[in-house]
Amino acid sequence: MIIREATEQDFDAIWPIFHEIVAAGETYAYDPNTNREEALKIWLHVPRQTFVVVVDGRILGTYYLKTNQAGPGSHVCNCGYMVASQARGMGLATAMCEHSQKVAVELGYQAMQFNFVASSNEGAVQLWQKLGFEIVGRLPQAFNHPSKGFVDALVMYKWLG
Amino acid sequence: MIIREATEQDFDAIWPIFHEIVAAGETYAYDPNTNREEALKIWLHVPRQTFVVVVDGRILGTYYLKTNQAGPGSHVCNCGYMVASQARGMGLATAMCEHSQKVAVELGYQAMQFNFVASSNEGAVQLWQKLGFEIVGRLPQAFNHPSKGFVDALVMYKWLG
Repeated sequence: MIIREATEQDFDAIWPIFHEIVAAGETYAYDPNTNREEALKIWLHVPRQTFVVVVDGRILGTYYLKTNQAGPGSHVCNCGYMVASQARGMGLATAMCEHSQKVAVELGYQAMQFNFVASSNEGAVQLWQKLGFEIVGRLPQAFNHPSKGFVDALVMYKWLG
Repeated sequence: MIIREATEQDFDAIWPIFHEIVAAGETYAYDPNTNREEALKIWLHVPRQTFVVVVDGRILGTYYLKTNQAGPGSHVCNCGYMVASQARGMGLATAMCEHSQKVAVELGYQAMQFNFVASSNEGAVQLWQKLGFEIVGRLPQAFNHPSKGFVDALVMYKWLG
């Protein structure tokens, strides 16, 4: 498993992963109808850095890192992680999250925040907790899940110091 | 006191208010060095709607309203309010917050969220609580205050339903 910075060319492999996850509408606060062009902007252009996970020559995971708030909040970064459905349970999310924390420290960030974790995404919540993130906020019914309806969204946070 | 939608021409009056507040770096997570052109984009172009408060023909307050998260989070809006220093204590923030809640309901939003309230901004925290917002999150040391150093930032939330 290799984690490296993404290039524009990698988007051919990133797009199917992004599209499957976002169209499902169960975990990310992006429009489920986000098209390829918008996704390229969201995932590769807006963030400060984007990475891919390559397993046996295939891109099976990806994450971005960006500054979460400007000015007085700019010492805290934000990341988003995506794993291809065929690669779930292989430890890619853990590897990406640990990698992103190292990158964040190298870039001078002092904390990492996840702004909007669907509480129904229990696997993710447990994984982030295992990796040192705390639930620091609960947004009542802020996530409109396609089958469960309104569920709480969680804010998770880790000081990297 | 009249609250009406802002026009591009109003930015001559909005800019000094924005600049004074943002340059101080005590309350908003914008770069304190934000210039006029960037401020115009942040305050008038990116948001869904922007309003001004006119008192005796002068613009003394302004707020924006936007969707806080896309897709599964798009039923929650976000607002930011600014009052000119010479107009503090005149009830403009209360008037704007109440106005924004009405506008939000008219636009179909079901909740309003403030993502990043500096805990040191006690007047604002108390006012939002008085107006029905709850503290639903506390981000440890997420706000770098120019004189107090790292202070917690609060997430505040109100269901409008």
